[in-house]
Amino acid sequence: MKRKFYIEGNLEIVKNGQRFLTSKRIALLKLVKQKGSINAASKELKMSYQQAWHFIKEMNEISPLPLVIRQRGGSNGGGAILTRFGETAIKEFERLSEAHNHFKDDETEKLRLCFFL
Amino acid sequence: MKRKFYIEGNLEIVKNGQRFLTSKRIALLKLVKQKGSINAASKELKMSYQQAWHFIKEMNEISPLPLVIRQRGGSNGGGAILTRFGETAIKEFERLSEAHNHFKDDETEKLRLCFFL
Repeated sequence: MKRKFYIEGNLEIVKNGQRFLTSKRIALLKLVKQKGSINAASKELKMSYQQAWHFIKEMNEISPLPLVIRQRGGSNGGGAILTRFGETAIKEFERLSEAHNHFKDDETEKLRLCFFL
Repeated sequence: MKRKFYIEGNLEIVKNGQRFLTSKRIALLKLVKQKGSINAASKELKMSYQQAWHFIKEMNEISPLPLVIRQRGGSNGGGAILTRFGETAIKEFERLSEAHNHFKDDETEKLRLCFFL
């Protein structure tokens, strides 16, 4: 259960002011891995294929190594696979989010002790 | 200088899903203290008096003790003073923001070591 007062906020990984990883993009990468298809992943997230592909293109361009590789052919534009680097990106972002949740919990506790009566 | 990859994100203090303190609201409280007037503070932040007053009203209602007290009279709706509790709120939010900046710096360093080649 949430305390009355608590701290909220999400982190993003950014490169030179351009978004690289966000929790939404990580959700997309996880679905691409699971479904093997950008099209199927985008449907699950209720976003257009164009939007999903835009996110993936942007991540791949910013990243030192590609996160997703598209495969040719098929009526839905072919499949897509998550690279090992993509796996690492997901794992690291989730580790970061967990550390951030701990940070927010600790700080919520401090605030409460300090001044939220 | 910023590193190529870095972590971005701001925190808010929330009560039951309702915004209490944000960096923008803290900027407003600091200006109310400095100027002694909500009107003057709102002008400095290029927001309307209505918006500034809405923020302050909302903070005062959520807070266990009022942060700002309006004083009567005068053509600009009278002055306003920041309470001691308001001072504590500013100080605590700034301590939190500093701790958060350290957290983000440390995590940026870890990410870089781990996978940003």
